[in-house]
Amino acid sequence: MRILITAGPTREYLDDVRYLSNASSGQMGYALARSAIAAGHEVALVSGPVTIAPPAGCELYQVETTDEMFAQCEKLFPNCDGVIGTAAVCDYRIKTRKPGKIAKTGEAITLELIETIDVLAELGSQKGNRWVMGFALESQDARFNAVRKLYSKKCDAIVLNSVSAIGSSENFVEVIDQSQEIVATYSGEKTQVADSLIEWIQQHLAGR
Amino acid sequence: MRILITAGPTREYLDDVRYLSNASSGQMGYALARSAIAAGHEVALVSGPVTIAPPAGCELYQVETTDEMFAQCEKLFPNCDGVIGTAAVCDYRIKTRKPGKIAKTGEAITLELIETIDVLAELGSQKGNRWVMGFALESQDARFNAVRKLYSKKCDAIVLNSVSAIGSSENFVEVIDQSQEIVATYSGEKTQVADSLIEWIQQHLAGR
Repeated sequence: MRILITAGPTREYLDDVRYLSNASSGQMGYALARSAIAAGHEVALVSGPVTIAPPAGCELYQVETTDEMFAQCEKLFPNCDGVIGTAAVCDYRIKTRKPGKIAKTGEAITLELIETIDVLAELGSQKGNRWVMGFALESQDARFNAVRKLYSKKCDAIVLNSVSAIGSSENFVEVIDQSQEIVATYSGEKTQVADSLIEWIQQHLAGR
Repeated sequence: MRILITAGPTREYLDDVRYLSNASSGQMGYALARSAIAAGHEVALVSGPVTIAPPAGCELYQVETTDEMFAQCEKLFPNCDGVIGTAAVCDYRIKTRKPGKIAKTGEAITLELIETIDVLAELGSQKGNRWVMGFALESQDARFNAVRKLYSKKCDAIVLNSVSAIGSSENFVEVIDQSQEIVATYSGEKTQVADSLIEWIQQHLAGR
């Protein structure tokens, strides 16, 4: 298979210096890329700013903002068999980005944030006969919200992980498929979880 | 001398996942720590989240938010001879941090940002006979604003660098002292600029 993987955070700038982001390390996505390549697949990895090296043999596309991530994915997706969306996309952007650096005045400032494009939902709506695996990170009503995301993003499966996974080398995940049931759980080092997820994809999503 | 150095960015959280920050790599502060140790000084390095290793022989204090950086510096400063403030402190925080992860609703959200504590200005006001070197990064009226910061933060010298220095391994800096004049300029790799700045401090600020 040729697999599109998104990884890392994206950044949305207030001005030329300050941005909104999150502590996603990219480890889960990079581990999946490594596992997929080891299992004989081709990988196109679209990554926000992280400090880890891509696995050997991986096509890497570096992006910064959510719009950039979407534009790159939209180009690559038609030639892939499926997509795994692990990126912790910055889902709000500042309505009016200021040039330069906003100078401090002592006053409070009010920012209006609007939602960024939903990268995975867009790919889901364009998927045709390709498969889509999403990742969800929820702090409340996690399984309920994961299932909601499964449908709204047109995913074939969604991997639910906890807030504590961000920036950590370990993860505990539950795989939910279109039956709305938890069909697999994996825990341990993200590298091991990645091997298990690639195997699950091969068994359940490949060759559709 | 025993030198307090601040480095890296700080983060200010909207909720448990999303934060406001900047792309400061910490390279300038870590390079200064290395140069200072090589020149025979002791260094206490207070650093926001970065991915580079501290130099051997350096006391490292890791912090995340601006308040944490200030609290750590306030503890260390009385036992130091001076402070070099290279940290790109996140100077706005979200007035009301939400627990968990704010769920997307499709609506715009409005954030009120208020200024964080000015770490270097606070240390400046407590300096007594210790010296204070600040760093300024300005996109407009750079020298004018640098001099304004020199006074408002009670610095003995301020190092002016450009927006392009963020995340880069190179830097071009101008040192402005209380004469309001540019008394030195250095350019090149941050490691070289750091050596020059430590030498400048030894000649002009040490032993006051």
